[in-house]
Parts: sequence; C-alpha cells; structure tokens
Amino acid sequence: MTRAETERRAMRRALALAERGPRGVNPQVGAVILSPAGEVIAEGWHRGAGTPHAEIDALSHLAPDQTRGATAVVTLEPCNHTGRTGPCSEALIDAGVARVVYAVADPNVVSSGGAERLRSAGVDVESGVLAADAEALLHSWLEVQRLGRPHVTVKWAQSLDGRAAAADGTSQWITGPQARADVHRRRALADAIVVGMGTVLADDPALTARRPDGTLYETQPLPVVVGSRPVPADAAVRRHPRPFVQHDGYDLAALLADLRERGVHRVFVEGGPTVASSFVRHGFADEVLAYIAPTLLGGDGLALRDVGVDTIADQVRLTVASVEHFGDDLLVVAHPVRRAAQAYAAQSAEATAAREGDS
Amino acid sequence: MTRAETERRAMRRALALAERGPRGVNPQVGAVILSPAGEVIAEGWHRGAGTPHAEIDALSHLAPDQTRGATAVVTLEPCNHTGRTGPCSEALIDAGVARVVYAVADPNVVSSGGAERLRSAGVDVESGVLAADAEALLHSWLEVQRLGRPHVTVKWAQSLDGRAAAADGTSQWITGPQARADVHRRRALADAIVVGMGTVLADDPALTARRPDGTLYETQPLPVVVGSRPVPADAAVRRHPRPFVQHDGYDLAALLADLRERGVHRVFVEGGPTVASSFVRHGFADEVLAYIAPTLLGGDGLALRDVGVDTIADQVRLTVASVEHFGDDLLVVAHPVRRAAQAYAAQSAEATAAREGDS
Repeated sequence: MTRAETERRAMRRALALAERGPRGVNPQVGAVILSPAGEVIAEGWHRGAGTPHAEIDALSHLAPDQTRGATAVVTLEPCNHTGRTGPCSEALIDAGVARVVYAVADPNVVSSGGAERLRSAGVDVESGVLAADAEALLHSWLEVQRLGRPHVTVKWAQSLDGRAAAADGTSQWITGPQARADVHRRRALADAIVVGMGTVLADDPALTARRPDGTLYETQPLPVVVGSRPVPADAAVRRHPRPFVQHDGYDLAALLADLRERGVHRVFVEGGPTVASSFVRHGFADEVLAYIAPTLLGGDGLALRDVGVDTIADQVRLTVASVEHFGDDLLVVAHPVRRAAQAYAAQSAEATAAREGDS
Repeated sequence: MTRAETERRAMRRALALAERGPRGVNPQVGAVILSPAGEVIAEGWHRGAGTPHAEIDALSHLAPDQTRGATAVVTLEPCNHTGRTGPCSEALIDAGVARVVYAVADPNVVSSGGAERLRSAGVDVESGVLAADAEALLHSWLEVQRLGRPHVTVKWAQSLDGRAAAADGTSQWITGPQARADVHRRRALADAIVVGMGTVLADDPALTARRPDGTLYETQPLPVVVGSRPVPADAAVRRHPRPFVQHDGYDLAALLADLRERGVHRVFVEGGPTVASSFVRHGFADEVLAYIAPTLLGGDGLALRDVGVDTIADQVRLTVASVEHFGDDLLVVAHPVRRAAQAYAAQSAEATAAREGDS
C-alpha cells in the first residue's frame, strides 16, 4: 500500500471515530496516529466541549518515543489557540510528530492557523484528504461557523392566499396528513424547535417529532418557547422528553447565540405568525418552508405579518429550491436572497428595458 | 358508402359550416340537407342572434319538393320554441323532412324538446353523431348554458405570502416576464377582461392581449371596468381596440348577465384585490389562477381580502388542476369546490379519526 493509500484508510477510520463524539458547540473530530512504518498506533476522538481534542486524545495513549516521527491523521485542521485545552499544533510539535494530514481547514479565525504553525516548526502538512466526507460530517457545524449562529428554517402552513387561520381564529387542519408528516420528519432533523407563547396558549403543541403512527423519532428537537408569559402548568410542551427553554424573544440574536452555546446547529421555527415574521424581518431566516393548502380564507389571519418591507424595492426575494406535492398540499422550499434591494434594482432595470408591452 | 358514413361526412361538413358563425349569445350551428339518395342538396349555418337558425338557413335554399323525404344533418338538436325565429322542429316537419341527425342535445329547458316533437310527428331522429366534436366546438357556449352565466376565471399575482403590493402600495414586477406572457396568452382566450376602477386609476392598464414583442393578438377581450368613478379621459383603456364597458359592480350577477347578453362566454377577472375577492366571495369564481412570485412582502397589500370566510368550516376549498413554472414564478390553477362547508365537514371527521399524532 502506498503512503497515500495508508493515510486515506486512516482518514476513513478517523471519520468513523469522529462520529462517536456528540454534535454540539464543538466539531466532531477523529484522529489516528500512524507509526513511521504506517501502522495505526493510536486512535482518538473529541467527546465534547471541555474534553481533550481528538489529536490530544490519540497522543495520550502513546509514550514520547512512539510519537516521534509519527504521522497524525486528523479530520479537522489542528487548532492553534488556547481554549479550555491548549493548542493542538503545539502538542503535535512537542510530541515530535513528523507529518500531519487533515481533511478540512478550521474555519474559525480564533482557532485557525494550526497548519501554518506546524509548517513553521518543520512538520510536513497535507490537507484536503477525504475533504468531502469530512465536510459532509461537519456540514451543520461548518454552517454555524460560517453564519456565526445556528442555521434557521422558518416553516409555516398557509392557504393559497397566505392565511394561517380564518377570521375567527379557527385554523387546524388547513394542510393534510402527508404535509404534517413531512413537518414531523423535518422536526426530527432539527436541533431545536421554536414557537411563540401565543401558539403554546392557542394550540398547546407537544413540539415532539412523531412518526405517522404517533411514536417518537429517536432524536427530538430542544423545545424553545418565545415570550414572557408563563407556560401553563398543564402545557403539552412540559411533557416533551427534553425540558423546554424559554426566551422573552425581544432579542433574536441573543436567542440564537444562546442556542448555539447549547450546541444547536439547526433551528426549526414553527410560528405563529409573529415569531415567523420576526425571524424573516431580522434576516435570520436561512430557509423558508411554506406548506400551501389549496384553499382560500381571506381576512386577517395571516401566516406572515410585518417582514420589514415598506416598499417593493425592499422585498425579501427568494430563491425557490423545490416545490413538492404532499397530497393536495404544496411545499415551497426557498432561500431568502441577501441584499434583496440591490438584486431587485438590477431586475427592475431589466424589466424597464422590456417594459413596452405590460399590463 | 353506407348511410351512416354519408351522414357522418355531412356532419363533419355541418361542423365546418358552424364555425363560420360568430361565438356569442347563440350557439354556433351548421346544417346540411341530404337528398333521399344521400347527396348534399343544401347547406346553412347560424350567423348570430336575430338571424335564421342553421336548419332554416339550409331549407331556405330549397323548393318544397326538394325537402320532402330529405335528411337534415344538424350539429345541435333543432329547437322547439318560438324566439326571434319560429321553432326549427316545426319548420322541419312542415318541409316534410323524413329524418333528422344531430350531434348534441339542446341543454336549454326553454328551447329543448325538438327531438321529441320531431319523433311525435313521425320523423326518424338520430342523435350523438360526432357528438364529441360538436361539444368541443360548443364547449364555452355549453358551459354558459350549464352555469347560467359566463365562465369566470379570477387571476391574481401574489408574493408567496399572499401580498400583491408592499406596504406603500408599490407593486409592479412582482412576477417575471414569462408569467406576464402567460397572462396575455390567457387574456386572448377570454371574451372579456374585468378590472376594478382602483386598478385603472393606479396602474392604467391597456387591457389588451399582447405577444411578448408587444403586438396585439388577433382576438382581444372586451374591456370591462367595475366601479362608479369616471374612467379618466387619458386612460389607456380608452385606446383599447374595443370600446370598454363600465359597471358599478355592486351586483356581479347583473354584470355577468349583461356580459352574457353581449355574447361573452369566458370572463377573465384581473383584479385588483377588491374585485377578485368579490367574485370569489359571491361564488362566481369557476377557476382561480394564482401567479406566485418567490418573494415575501408582509404588510397589508393583500392579493385577496374578504372572501366571505368567517370560520374554517366555510373555507373556499380548491381542487388544484396544475402547478406550472414560469421562470422563477409558479402558477397554481385551481377550481373552487362547491359546498366547501360540507366537504370540509367530511374531511374534518376523517382528520379527527387520525388526530392522534398532531402538532
């Protein structure tokens, strides 16, 4: 086996080890130490915030004479900063490691630079080995690093004309069972589910992710209630397998920062209209899911309210990723386009050019 | 050639003759008279209200001795009532016609019964010859007879969240050029296009059906403005190839009855929100076209307002016929389900049975 083959095999093992760690504030990372002859002499992985990083965990199994001249295969670029643990780059240098192979670069400004530090100490460094696999594993964590906060999906159900309820507030069963099953499936993929106190008081949702037969999915989102009124003593959310978190909701950035601290990567905002609109208005909606029931309601029971658009140039323009059919209902999955005003201006100029011939 | 073949060929000819007549209050009808030997001895068609029916037109070319024992091949069941012309059934009997072959039955209570009258006078009658072709030709007229009024399509463009305009009223170019081209194509298929005075004052639409290059389609819908304020002297609608009709709009049934009298089969309601909602609320929307632009606007610029739904059981449930993509926009074509309350009640009972497991 060539060295490249040996190292790819070790990386595959490191990725498997990484998955043993928890998804949370810190990335899931695995490490394998190879002897100069290419034999696996130690393995390690990160077990969550406050515990040793994967490289350190692996090195801890070895005596100093074993690490000298060894190759460390790590799924993420070794860190270069002192947090609750010391910099891994220094630990690898101190251990006399001759070569470091990693899959993806550390996207964090504060902890990155490990590769550079290693090279400056004479360590042979190679990056990008099985990068796609590592990125897939770390997808949601990398997204949190990129966004600087958890990824937010805002979901609502509406009539074709954009209403969530009839004039008297009655609303249940606008969408059909297939659409509701899809919502539950997506809840199970989220780390937290956010609803407003109004929804808790009006609908008393369980906020669990359930299969069509009523059984719970293995993973359940953290229930988060936004609003300052107390959650009723008999509210269904109090029977959720995970204790709910309550926020006053005035500062969504703070709410998201808190959720990030709790290890939340993906937030599923389920409404009602005030909470959903608030996330859109503040630019915190990375994805919107509009389940559209084939019905017209009219009136004031709007699914979205003020999304911060005063004039058409400020519209929250979306890129539609997909349109799916669930029974009689449609699901439009879309992503708000940042800097909508500028994009609109460009489109508008184009439209003006083609204006001859409208309305 | 058998008699059946001869008569089918004559019916095909009668259908071609029918198309020469105008689409309007009266049906397009053609007639061919065959000699007892099966030769075509006369042709006729209806040229519009107040002119002879097709059978009479055909008979008028013949001397009494020619019609005796002949076969009349007519696309629509001969009428049996005295309107501006006498009953065709009596004229055929008086002419001594031995056999009458027609394609589709007369759906009107007042004029139907012609076949029965003919049979009672000893005339040999056969119906249903090339019925599908005749129904295709008369499709929109038959629909008017069935509905008792013109067929109404209500079209609007909206953001995903159901708005037609931003909070300050700005709205143009929510949908893209492909969607707008589709609207123009559909305008050309309509006999009348209805807008509210608010739309005339705000957008000054030309209400013509135009190709993307700005040229006019051959057929142009009759422009109809709803509202009591005067149409401005310089309004674009005054330059429409057809003089516009104005109605106060308080009585949509009267408006539709008037349009029917004008020979309108298909009405295209283009809004704004008040007019569109009004047609839906009164149950006059046979088809709705919602062009959905991938954008969120929030606020009060709703595409539909009060559609007469106070509680969820009264919702205007729709059957979705198609979902089409036009560039970035979606078009949902749907048909309101009559007696929505009852349909909902049935669905609701089903939902209750499956209730275990929601929200």
